[in-house]
Amino acid sequence: MSNSWMVELPVTPVGRVEPCCPPLTSAELSQADAEKMAAMFKALADPVRLRLFSKVASHPDGEACVCDIADVGVSQPTVSHHLKKLREAGLLASERRGTWVYYWVEPAVIAGMAALLGSPD
Amino acid sequence: MSNSWMVELPVTPVGRVEPCCPPLTSAELSQADAEKMAAMFKALADPVRLRLFSKVASHPDGEACVCDIADVGVSQPTVSHHLKKLREAGLLASERRGTWVYYWVEPAVIAGMAALLGSPD
Repeated sequence: MSNSWMVELPVTPVGRVEPCCPPLTSAELSQADAEKMAAMFKALADPVRLRLFSKVASHPDGEACVCDIADVGVSQPTVSHHLKKLREAGLLASERRGTWVYYWVEPAVIAGMAALLGSPD
Repeated sequence: MSNSWMVELPVTPVGRVEPCCPPLTSAELSQADAEKMAAMFKALADPVRLRLFSKVASHPDGEACVCDIADVGVSQPTVSHHLKKLREAGLLASERRGTWVYYWVEPAVIAGMAALLGSPD
């Protein structure tokens, strides 16, 4: 990123999906871990959220301006709602820079979710 | 499995989650792929389904009798409902043998979901 006007604001997620639990295939989940994991999967269990997430995750710059990803066929308030859900789940991080909010993927969280599914390292 | 009374019934899933889509991190998802993937994640977005799934996936025999996994704190009809959802999503396969139904995990589907999350191979 070469935006000289970039402002580093502190990021304070409302909630957060942490890699939390043993792989699903290695041991029975406790009720508490099952609730954490269900929240992670729920955040990705919506087509619009998945499309927004993949637009951010696949963006060449490694991050995306909300102005570049909002064309998913729903209204701007709906886009904002889904981006908030992804942020609250800790799947996306965000930062306001001037007019726009920028989003990027939390790689540790994604790797953690893949590990939960028992994928080989 | 050494059950001499094992009967090989044909398994006909009602629906099926196939590994379908490029990794979330490699390209923007199409609407059609996003809908398929959301269905996969939705099947795992429930604590009871996750606990049932992990009981099957972590069972020492590689499969589990429904009689061994039903103690997840909900009624038997609710267990049946959730097992049906997991079967319909293609995450579990099942087979009736005599009195009991046995469940096992579809490994290709789990590997496919992990790949969707862009985990390293």
